[in-house]
Amino acid sequence: MFKVGFVTTNKGKARELIELGRLYGVEVNVIYSSKVEIQDVDLKTVALHAALNAMAQLGKPIAVEDSGLFIKALNGFPGPFSSYVYKTLGINGILKLMSDVDHREAVFKSVIAYADPGVGIHVFEGEVRGTISYRAKGKGGFGFDPIFIPVNSSKTFAEMNINEKNRVSHRSKAFKLFVDWLRKSFKT
Amino acid sequence: MFKVGFVTTNKGKARELIELGRLYGVEVNVIYSSKVEIQDVDLKTVALHAALNAMAQLGKPIAVEDSGLFIKALNGFPGPFSSYVYKTLGINGILKLMSDVDHREAVFKSVIAYADPGVGIHVFEGEVRGTISYRAKGKGGFGFDPIFIPVNSSKTFAEMNINEKNRVSHRSKAFKLFVDWLRKSFKT
Repeated sequence: MFKVGFVTTNKGKARELIELGRLYGVEVNVIYSSKVEIQDVDLKTVALHAALNAMAQLGKPIAVEDSGLFIKALNGFPGPFSSYVYKTLGINGILKLMSDVDHREAVFKSVIAYADPGVGIHVFEGEVRGTISYRAKGKGGFGFDPIFIPVNSSKTFAEMNINEKNRVSHRSKAFKLFVDWLRKSFKT
Repeated sequence: MFKVGFVTTNKGKARELIELGRLYGVEVNVIYSSKVEIQDVDLKTVALHAALNAMAQLGKPIAVEDSGLFIKALNGFPGPFSSYVYKTLGINGILKLMSDVDHREAVFKSVIAYADPGVGIHVFEGEVRGTISYRAKGKGGFGFDPIFIPVNSSKTFAEMNINEKNRVSHRSKAFKLFVDWLRKSFKT
């Protein structure tokens, strides 16, 4: 079985990555460490930079996952800064910004960047479209999950259990592409 | 006269830096180029990183200036992400987040980081306290200037001309410390 190290300090994300590893047949080893994130509106650039830095620091192949909620009516805000905005404005801040806003389309995006001196840095993207709910619902997931309803669902991400979320999430889609690539690139 | 290079893509900031140079007796040479900004809640860390990268890229001593508006009722938001938040939520987004909020204290902070292979990287900080206005006023300055009223003033930064703003601004305070240090460190 493939073993992959992921750097993160987010426990909710770590739990999902480990569970995604089980789903797709790879062993996820979480390294609880902060990563260098640059300010860029493109998640891929943020993830490439973070993966390169983590690899240089740890001296071995490593993956990072960066994700963001892009709300159309807010010009893509909070996007790559979702974690900081969650900590400062929180869910209520987003709901306040979205009050009296009818167009509630949003996209949750995930980028996994895998840095390996032997093969370079590769990025894998996943996204799921949906809408911002009018109030927070559910206790599962993390971050803005209580206000994001993916298409073809009546539940927010936070109302789903981890398996339900992993069947449809942005992170799951990126993770599957990553695992497919691992299998193809490192045939064992 | 001292000559100092500053890297920025912000024309409003460039204009102020050139004018501050005239005020404090140094020649400011603006290099219109983007800089690497990391995601960090501490402006000093962002500025140190940006200055180091700019120096490495340009191969010569260089300064960067990073600033942010820290609103107390919003847990410091938008802080180091002021530029991104200005482009996405804009002034109206901040006013919406601050609607029905009585405690309107805020701090504008500026950090200048000067990177020079001979002396290392030095940071100089300035800040000005004030309040967030209830509506945008004035056409001067840039960014969130139309909604920031510094203490002991009845005008927003955007209602001041550049000389009035430079007498009291966070950027001016950081700039003065920088110039004092330059004179002391490189006596000519």
